[in-house]
This record gives sequence, C-alpha cells and structure tokens, in this order.
Amino acid sequence: MLDDMFNAKSVAVIGASHKKGKIGYDIMISLLRDYKGKIIPVNPKGGKIHGIPSYTSIKEYGPVDLAVIVIPAHLVPLTVKECGETGIKNIIVISAGFKEVDTEGAEFENQIVEICKNYDIKLVGPNCLGIIDTHNHLNASFASEIASKGKISFMTQSGAIMAVILDYADKHHIGFSRIISLGNKAGINEKDCMENFMEDENTDVISAYLEGIVDGPGFIEVSRKASKKKPVVLIKSGTTSKGSEAVSSHTGTIAGSESAYEAAFSKCGILRAYSLEELMDYCRALTLFPLPRGNRIAIVTNAGGPGIMTTDAAINNGLELAVLSSETKLKLKNGLPESASVKNPVDVLGDASPDRCAFALDTVLKDPNVDGIILLVTPQSVTDLVGSAIVASEYATKSHKPVLCSFFGGTQCEKAEKVLDDNKVPNYVYPKTAVKTLKALYDYNIIRNQEYPESPRFNVDKEAVKSIIEDAKKKNVTTLGLRSFDILKSYGIPTVGTALTTTIEETVESAEEIGYPLVMKIVSPNISHKYDVGGIKLNLNNAEEVKTAYEDMMENIPLKEPEAHIEGVQLQKMLSSGTEVIIGMVRDPTFGPMIMFGFGGIYVEIFEDVKFAIAPLNEIEAENMITGIKTHKLLEGTRGDKPKDIPSITDTILRISQLATDFPEINEFEINPLMVFDEGEGALAVDMRMVLKKD
Amino acid sequence: MLDDMFNAKSVAVIGASHKKGKIGYDIMISLLRDYKGKIIPVNPKGGKIHGIPSYTSIKEYGPVDLAVIVIPAHLVPLTVKECGETGIKNIIVISAGFKEVDTEGAEFENQIVEICKNYDIKLVGPNCLGIIDTHNHLNASFASEIASKGKISFMTQSGAIMAVILDYADKHHIGFSRIISLGNKAGINEKDCMENFMEDENTDVISAYLEGIVDGPGFIEVSRKASKKKPVVLIKSGTTSKGSEAVSSHTGTIAGSESAYEAAFSKCGILRAYSLEELMDYCRALTLFPLPRGNRIAIVTNAGGPGIMTTDAAINNGLELAVLSSETKLKLKNGLPESASVKNPVDVLGDASPDRCAFALDTVLKDPNVDGIILLVTPQSVTDLVGSAIVASEYATKSHKPVLCSFFGGTQCEKAEKVLDDNKVPNYVYPKTAVKTLKALYDYNIIRNQEYPESPRFNVDKEAVKSIIEDAKKKNVTTLGLRSFDILKSYGIPTVGTALTTTIEETVESAEEIGYPLVMKIVSPNISHKYDVGGIKLNLNNAEEVKTAYEDMMENIPLKEPEAHIEGVQLQKMLSSGTEVIIGMVRDPTFGPMIMFGFGGIYVEIFEDVKFAIAPLNEIEAENMITGIKTHKLLEGTRGDKPKDIPSITDTILRISQLATDFPEINEFEINPLMVFDEGEGALAVDMRMVLKKD
Repeated sequence: MLDDMFNAKSVAVIGASHKKGKIGYDIMISLLRDYKGKIIPVNPKGGKIHGIPSYTSIKEYGPVDLAVIVIPAHLVPLTVKECGETGIKNIIVISAGFKEVDTEGAEFENQIVEICKNYDIKLVGPNCLGIIDTHNHLNASFASEIASKGKISFMTQSGAIMAVILDYADKHHIGFSRIISLGNKAGINEKDCMENFMEDENTDVISAYLEGIVDGPGFIEVSRKASKKKPVVLIKSGTTSKGSEAVSSHTGTIAGSESAYEAAFSKCGILRAYSLEELMDYCRALTLFPLPRGNRIAIVTNAGGPGIMTTDAAINNGLELAVLSSETKLKLKNGLPESASVKNPVDVLGDASPDRCAFALDTVLKDPNVDGIILLVTPQSVTDLVGSAIVASEYATKSHKPVLCSFFGGTQCEKAEKVLDDNKVPNYVYPKTAVKTLKALYDYNIIRNQEYPESPRFNVDKEAVKSIIEDAKKKNVTTLGLRSFDILKSYGIPTVGTALTTTIEETVESAEEIGYPLVMKIVSPNISHKYDVGGIKLNLNNAEEVKTAYEDMMENIPLKEPEAHIEGVQLQKMLSSGTEVIIGMVRDPTFGPMIMFGFGGIYVEIFEDVKFAIAPLNEIEAENMITGIKTHKLLEGTRGDKPKDIPSITDTILRISQLATDFPEINEFEINPLMVFDEGEGALAVDMRMVLKKD
Repeated sequence: MLDDMFNAKSVAVIGASHKKGKIGYDIMISLLRDYKGKIIPVNPKGGKIHGIPSYTSIKEYGPVDLAVIVIPAHLVPLTVKECGETGIKNIIVISAGFKEVDTEGAEFENQIVEICKNYDIKLVGPNCLGIIDTHNHLNASFASEIASKGKISFMTQSGAIMAVILDYADKHHIGFSRIISLGNKAGINEKDCMENFMEDENTDVISAYLEGIVDGPGFIEVSRKASKKKPVVLIKSGTTSKGSEAVSSHTGTIAGSESAYEAAFSKCGILRAYSLEELMDYCRALTLFPLPRGNRIAIVTNAGGPGIMTTDAAINNGLELAVLSSETKLKLKNGLPESASVKNPVDVLGDASPDRCAFALDTVLKDPNVDGIILLVTPQSVTDLVGSAIVASEYATKSHKPVLCSFFGGTQCEKAEKVLDDNKVPNYVYPKTAVKTLKALYDYNIIRNQEYPESPRFNVDKEAVKSIIEDAKKKNVTTLGLRSFDILKSYGIPTVGTALTTTIEETVESAEEIGYPLVMKIVSPNISHKYDVGGIKLNLNNAEEVKTAYEDMMENIPLKEPEAHIEGVQLQKMLSSGTEVIIGMVRDPTFGPMIMFGFGGIYVEIFEDVKFAIAPLNEIEAENMITGIKTHKLLEGTRGDKPKDIPSITDTILRISQLATDFPEINEFEINPLMVFDEGEGALAVDMRMVLKKD
C-alpha cells in the first residue's frame, strides 16, 4: 500500500521555503538534488521558490502523488483537509508539535488522523524526517543527502537515527532501497512498512530501529511472512525501561516488556541487533554473502595470537570451530610450510604470501565440515596486505560459502581496506565483529528453514468457561481460586482431585471419588494459620479417617476460633512424587497473551530461568519453550531419575495457549505447580490462580 | 630489574644484516631510525652494515648494555655464552625455533636458560618481536615503526598482536612508553614486566595481552601492588580452551582455567578487556580522564533515539542514570528551549548550538548527583558538528569529572573527529563504546580504593592434620572420607556429630556423646544398597533405640549379605533444619588453591551460581564470595525465613583457605553440604570429601 508513496511521480512541498535554516528549505533542496519527478512548492506567499513557481495553496495546483507538509502544527489539520479535498492520497507530515509535546498537539494529531480516515489518505508522521526511495531518486526528507542505491530497506522511529544511519552509510559505502522515518506513527506504522519492504523487489534485507510497536499481533503476522522471504534485522531500544503495571504472579514479576519483545521477535524470526554497528554489519553481510548451512567455521590466519582471540569470540558467540577432515589437513600439510598449523585455526604464518592465503582458503573451503570462513590478516613486517586483500576479495565475492575478512590493524591496513571496499567487500576490523556477523548469517539460515505449523485447536468446552467467567463477573469477583480448576478441566487439562464440600456426607462421597491418600483443609476467610488450629489433616487413607477428621475440625475449630465463618473443607489428593513446573500467562499490552514456562520453586525468580512465548502457540514453539530453559535437564532424567512426561507439559502449554487466545477476559493466570510425573504417567495441575480483567 | 634493558645506551645486533627480508636487517633499520645510543652490528662476515663497521663476534667488541640476537636457533646457545663471557647482562633472543617447534628446540632453550642463570643475564624471548622504549627512542624490535610517545606500557605474549597494536595505535594516535614482546618467556615473564611498568615513571597505565601466566602466585602478588598504583588492563585469550584434567567434585566440574583467571584477576584488581578495541579504549581513557567517583552518569545529547540506546547500554553495563537535582533541572529548564528534555538523558534538541551544548554540560557537571557524562552528538541537518567538537574538547580535557564524547555518525562527523583528535580527545563512535569505557574508569576507581587486609591466621592444630595426611600416605590412601572430619575439626570447623564404632558399648557411648536424634548406617565396603538390607536406621532417640538398632543390624544383615565384611556402624546426628551450601577447593595449575562457594543441590551445576577465589583469602574476599552469588538472597532470609548465619560461612571459608594454603598435599576437597542455621546458630559440615595429591 506504500508503493504509491515511494514511487510518487509528483511531490508537493507544502510549506516550501527559500530561507536557509527552515525545514521547508531543506526538503526542497533534498528533492531538487536527485528527483526526476515533478516538484510543486506550496507557500501562502507564492512566488518562485528555488526557481520553481509556487502555489499559495495545494488546491490551486490540484492532485499530486505525494504531499509533504512542513507548516506549524496548528495549521496542519486544515491543510490535510485541503489535500483530501484535492484528491491527494499520500501525505507525509514532517512538522513536530503534536502528541509528543502536549495535549493540544495530541488534539491536532487526532484531527489529522480523522481527516485521513475520511479521505482514505495514507499518512506518514507527524514529527518525522520523511522518506527516501533511491530507485525513484526520491529524497522527500530533510536528510541532506539521498542514500546510495542498495538492497537494504530501513524504517526508523527516531529521526536522529535516520540522520546517523545516512551519515554512517555514506562513510562505509552502504546502499539502501527505501528509508522511512515513522515519527509519531499516527497513520503508517511498522507493520505497513514491513509489508511494503517484504514486497519491494529492490529490497533484499529489511531493517528497523523501533522503540515500540503499535499493532503487536499485526506486526507478528506480517513479520513472520516477511522473515521467511528476506532477513529482517532490527534494533529495539528502550529495553531497560521498567514496566509500570503492578503484577502479582511469578509470571508477572518476571515478565516485562523486554521479555515480550524478545518472545515476539523470536516468534517472527527477527534477527535482533543491539547497536547500530551490528545492524549495519548484519544487513550488509546478508545482502552480500551466501548463508552458511551450519555453524562450523574455519579461521584462516597469518597470526597465532589473534587466531586464539577469534576462536574465543567464535565459541562465546555460539559458533563452533570446524574439525577439518584428514584429507584437508593432509593437503594443507603438503602445501604449507612445516611450522604452519593445519588444524583449525589454520595458521599460514606471518610471512604468508597472497598465494599461500589463497591456497589455504581454497583447501579449507572444499572441506565439507566447514560452513564458513573468517580470514584474519594482521600487518606483520613481511605481510603483503594489498595482495592479500585482492585474494580476500576474490574469495569473499565468489565462494559458495561465506568468507568474511578481518584485516586487523590500523594505518597499514588502510590500503587493504581500500581494495576490499572497491570490491564491495566489508572489512571487519575486529575479528569479533566478523564472528558476530557470521553468526547472524547462520541464524538467518535457521530462520529461513523454520517451519510454522498451525496452532492446534483442541476440542474443548468453551461454553463452560464462558459461564464460569460470566458468573464471576456477576459476583464482581476477579480472582478465581478453586473455581479455575473447572476452567482447566473444560480445556482438557487434568487437575489434581479436589473438592470443596460442606457436609460430612458430601465430604465422604467426594473423598471416595477422588481417591486416597487425601489432605483435608478447613475453608474459612478468617483463618490464616490453618495448621495451628488443626485445620489441616494429612494422609487420610479411607472414608473412616475422612469422617473422623471432618468431625474433629467441625467440633474443635469453632472452639479455638469462635468468630470464624467456616465455609466447609477442601479435599485434595496427596501426590507423593512428581516434578513441579510452572505454566503461566500474562497479557502484554503490545503483543497480547504471553505464555511462560519454567521450573517451580524459589529458583524461578532468582535465575529467571523461564521461557516466554506469544500465543497462539504451535507444537514446535511449545517444545522450544520446554527445551529452552536451563533446568530442562532435570526433566530428561538425571542422576538415576526417570525422564518426566514432557508430552504432557507440551499438551498443557498448548491448551493454555488456546484458552488465553479464546478468552481475552482472562488477564493473568498461573498453574503453579503443574506436577509432572514419569514418562507416560501424565501431569496434574495442583494449584491455580486466575485473574480476570477488571471492567 | 628491566630498566637496564629499556634504558640501554648501547645495543649490539648479533645477526645484523644488510639483506632486505632478513630480520637482522629489519632490526637494524628499526634501531637506526630513532635510537640515539650506540649500535653495534655483529656478523661473522664482518664489513660495514648500513654504513656501520660490524664485528665478527661480540667478544671482539666487548660489553654492551643490550644484545639482540637474530641468528638460527642452534647457534644461539653458544652466542649467549659469549655474551656472558663478555659481561653482557641483557639479552633479547628474537630468533624462533625453540620450545615452540620441537624437542630439539626445547633443548636449545634449556641451554640458553642455564647459561643466562650462570652469567646472571636477563633474557627476553626467545621467539619474540623485541622491545620498544619510546622515551629512550629505542626500537629493538622488527616492528617497522617505533610507537609514538605516551603513557601506556604494553606486554604481549603474541608477536602478531604487537604488530597489530602498533598499527592500530598509529592510526588512532595512541602513544606508548614501553612495549615488550615476551615470546616463549624462558627468562623474563609477565611478573617481571609488571614490576618494571609499575615503577616506570613514564607509565601511567599498564596493559597486556596474555595467553597464559608462568608464575601465578608471583603475578598476583606484584599485580596487586601495581593495580593500586596505576591501572592494569589486560586481555587473556584462550578462555574457551577446555581443561584436560579429569575431576570428580562439583567444584572440579565447574572450575576451569577461565574461572581461575577470573578469580586471580579479580584478586589483583586487574581490569579485563575482551578485545583489542576495548584494551586500547580503556587504556587511553585511563591516561586522559579523571576517575568518576560513582557510577551515576548523565547523558547530554541532541537526539532522542540515540539517547535511549545509550541509556540501554549504560544500564546493561552496570552504570546508572543519575537523577538530576531539582536545582539542575530548573536551571536547564530556564536555559534550554521548551521542548528540550531536562531529565536525564538531557536532550538539547536537534538544532542545539555549541553554546547550548556547553550550557547543558556546564549545568549537569555541577550536579553532585552526576559522576560522569557522555556527550552524544548526532549529525542532524542543522548541527554545527565542528563547533560542538570544540566545546566537547574543552569539557573533555578540563572537567574534574569524566566527559566522554560520542559523535555518532560517519562522513559528516569526520571533521568533528579531527577537532577532537587535535585535542587528544578520543571519539567513541558508538555510544556503547563510550559507556563501556566510562564503566572501566568507574571500575578502576573502585580498585584504587580497594583495601587488602591481611588474611587471618587462626589458631589451628596443624600437627594433627599432618599426622592424618602422613597416615593416609602410609596406607596409600588418597581419598579421605570420614577421616577428613578430623581435619576440619583440627582447623576449628564444626562438623556434625558423627562416629564410626565397632562394638555395642562404643556405639551407645558415642550416641550419648553426639546427642539425639541420630541416624545409624552400616559400614561395609561390600554393601552398596544399605537401605535395602536394613542398614540405615533413622530417628534414633535414645540409648535404648540405638542398642536395638545395632543389635538388629548385626543380627540380620549377615543373614542377608553373608559375604559382606562389616566394619561397624556410623552414627550421625540428624539435622532437622538448615540451608545447604558447598565450600570446595581445587588446585589450579597456575594459581594454586582456589576456593569455591555456592549453594547446595542440583542447581549448582545447572546455573553454575558459584564464586571462586584464590587462597589465601582475607575477610573481604570471603564475604564477597558469599554476596557474589545470585542465590545469596536465600541466605538473607526471604519469604518469612530467618536470615542464616553468614558469619559462620565466612569463618569456614577463611579456615578452609588457611588449610588449603598450609597443606599443598591436599589436592581437592569439598564440604557438601555445610549446613547453615539461623543467624547466631552456626553451621556444621555434614559431608566431606578430600583427595590428596598422588606422589
């Protein structure tokens, strides 16, 4: 839908100016420099602007493909309306002074949004830098220079970051296809841009700088498709800002906006960059190099120490050092000097000629155990840096496996860098950067091959849940205790046998139903230390014991707590074995239902060893949650323990995911613990807490 | 002791050459370029070399301050001997072909070391690049250019890294005082260099690239002194290489060479860098900026988005965003435009003039809540980058708090970088780099103020331990079980009441001594499932029950296990409460006794939530181990639990440290668990395993 904007053949600048220092001046300059389409300056004073006759109002000229508005905020609504009346369908509001400053500004912004809706106008901004399409030679922004042509598209929530990226790209010769500054995102948001970049044939890599996301679920849906088609790399900043909402569960305590973004990005196959350098390094590499099939890298170097540093960086960043085949090693041994190292890292020695480098690269590339190579060259007294760079460029651009180059030094390396640059090959000055970039290529290869099966739909009793929730609403109850067990049951999640009973007959009957051994607890809102008043009886093994226990409670507790209102007793099956896990759900303001899985006990909060995922989940996602925690080992059966019933956990997670998706009225819940038994023996929800949304 | 070498007034080059491509040629060129002292070329062919008359042997010339040897390895021993006979006391062997290649080479190296010992010669290398002293204009290396003068000294185990650093420093205008390439470290090692750099008045910052350390304890001792005097920053590479020794305890499983280095560096106040970029950034900053008193930083910027990214980086790297005083905010509010942000990050807006930057810097610097500043400037359409750089240089060089600059961009920032560079102010292109560097300054401020109290010496019964160990040696036993309890007792560490008894009378007597309740276990090397044969009796509450239990075991077990040799029974006091922690010790090949502290249970290995420290420990170090683990919270009393007796843990750690230091014969041990009771109630070692060194 944004194509009309990027491909605009005519652009009106409303607020065009010939006064230096005005943004309306900068925009005109930007357009005039490269744009081949028609430029229409609009200024109430009229006259010529930069030699082009201007119009006092857009109505005077008539429809254009794109209107760029740079006038004071309070005048914008009227102007947008005029655009609408003129039949203009694409508008960029550069001007600031809206939602980001005060309520009056927010009011103007609302008016604009309303008008755009009425006239079916696509709106970028307000409070943005504008857009660039290098293939249309369009720089409708007040960034001074258009980017050079390339295969990367970029959207940014910060205008300053657009300026930084353009300046950075200029220095490092990085080209772009489309760039868009999103500003306040009153109209066009990230999802729209993602959709556009995904379809743009000039875009090979999608990149973004975001501080927040307007339409979480929409973003996930589109990004998931986009990332299968081309890599999506983004910076999400503001990760350390604290969530403000008070929460009560484990899940809620650990879950924060950062966990939600992490879960969402992982769900849609987005590569995350944590700095601008990473963003540009990854994007550039993704446009240039073939993807490695695995993470087994080889390091070819002329220097031992730096080779070790690179090895450290590789291992620490999740890559592996390839084990070279004996064939490769033999060939290297025969072709390299005696004191060279033919094990990975392959050390071709300080006096290596470009030919020797080429020989080593060639040999190592042919090894089927090698998925990618880092060529690491340091300036030693006899090193032919330029010659090595020529060889490096050849291999970097023509190999069927990625070959990333690190000419590691300073002044002497500049000539080599020039050679690489002339061949459009980036130099990763620090080997660590080469390592991280190669890891990004590897990660994208996994994403590309990732399957996204449909989320399963279980046969559940939705009506039962509906009526429980309605009942609670009627009673003005938001926190459900025992009652939420029925919700789990309706969704096919086995719960530990439990009953709330009020008479001795009922109690015995329920006990027989649940089975023994049982625990009985007094139920009273007034008794907090149940144990102290004899309100907890463990290990009840038959009807007789249940009876006695009930009678004992009803007789003695009122004596000890005469004021207490006793509602009845709770019976629960006692479990003798099992491993405790937690499955929880919170509703993230951006992405909606977020499921948490982790181990039970005090360690959850200390180590935060949990996994989050955004619902609805499919089986792969549910399984990844389980294998994704460190304590996962404990489920596999360690130290003589039998393995636990992992399929039951997966099943529970998936049913919970369906429940969370089906009922937006449920705000938060947590099964803590879900008791998981040995393989084949299932799992039972033992305790449960559910909080409904307040109306 | 190395001063004579760096300050040499005459240098002989043994193996000097006029043939390009020979290292003996490069060294001559290096010396001739800058050195003001006397240069004596030595070459068996004689004649003039680079215009200087050469000698056929060093003996022919006589003593010099320093001899640099660049001849084939097999000729080196004889030459070193000649040097010794001539009275030369300082030698650098550049030549390779020694220990690093084969056993023959190792033999030559041993011979050299022997000769140097005999003649009291200081030896650098072999297999190194040489040394540089910029203040003596001495470049006795085959690095092509001498470094520029500066305040950083650098030692390196990799010659290639020296070449990289020199090239890097040349590009980034970083100066050095002394540089030394250590090579095989047959003579001079890291400790010697540390000692020398510590005393060198031209050195403000000590830096190093190391792959290993020859003399661990010596290195710790000297570095501890050095780091109080000046910052020590180093790269230790090879961190991902795996230890080879098989180990049996928790402590041993988790401990690796990397944990030992980490513990050692933390013990001596060494700042660790993980890349060359970090190394140079930190060193340079430490020579330039005042140290921040705390970690509360302010960000002053002309851009919102990059400000958020910098905030993220700051928080993630252990810095805090300063809370500006209301006075500061008011002043900023009055002096800045309305839409500027006067909260930290202070956003002076995209159109900020240099004056406005200066005003903001000035105001924020005066705030007592601010310990340091990052000035973050991005190239926006109206930004006066050069003007801002002039202001930035002023504040960076003259403020009493550190002001680190990040001009964040590319081409447009180059002029600003030039201004900074002319003022010797580094530009941290990426704000994250500025953050990490400021953190290093902060870390050094803590190190500088760190106290190193003496390790306590407890009154212990060393003789008793000696005799237990000797006894074990005699019996050829290396793994001590129960017997090691006596070792703990001798070192004043309370152990749970336990006894090994063989008669009914002895058993009852011991039971009365230990106190009840007790557990009794059968002791037999042949019975592995004690419980199954009735070999474990819990909850024995009085002498009668003990008697019955004993009789029962002695009567029935022989019936079930007629072949088993029964040694007696073990009595142990049953503990009903307490928190389990682990205190262990392994002996690191480099640094010696390394103490581990962590929580008990299966989580130790999964989360590796433990702390290591090199013995002997002082009280601060022991306390830091305890507070350093994440699970520490569990000792402080959470969720209604009472706080645990932390002083008892500290005491046990310190006594264990003394034991480990006193008895190098003990190779490994672990108290697992040490049961810690509520505050004031002490701790007891419950189980213990000790392994002696094999002879």
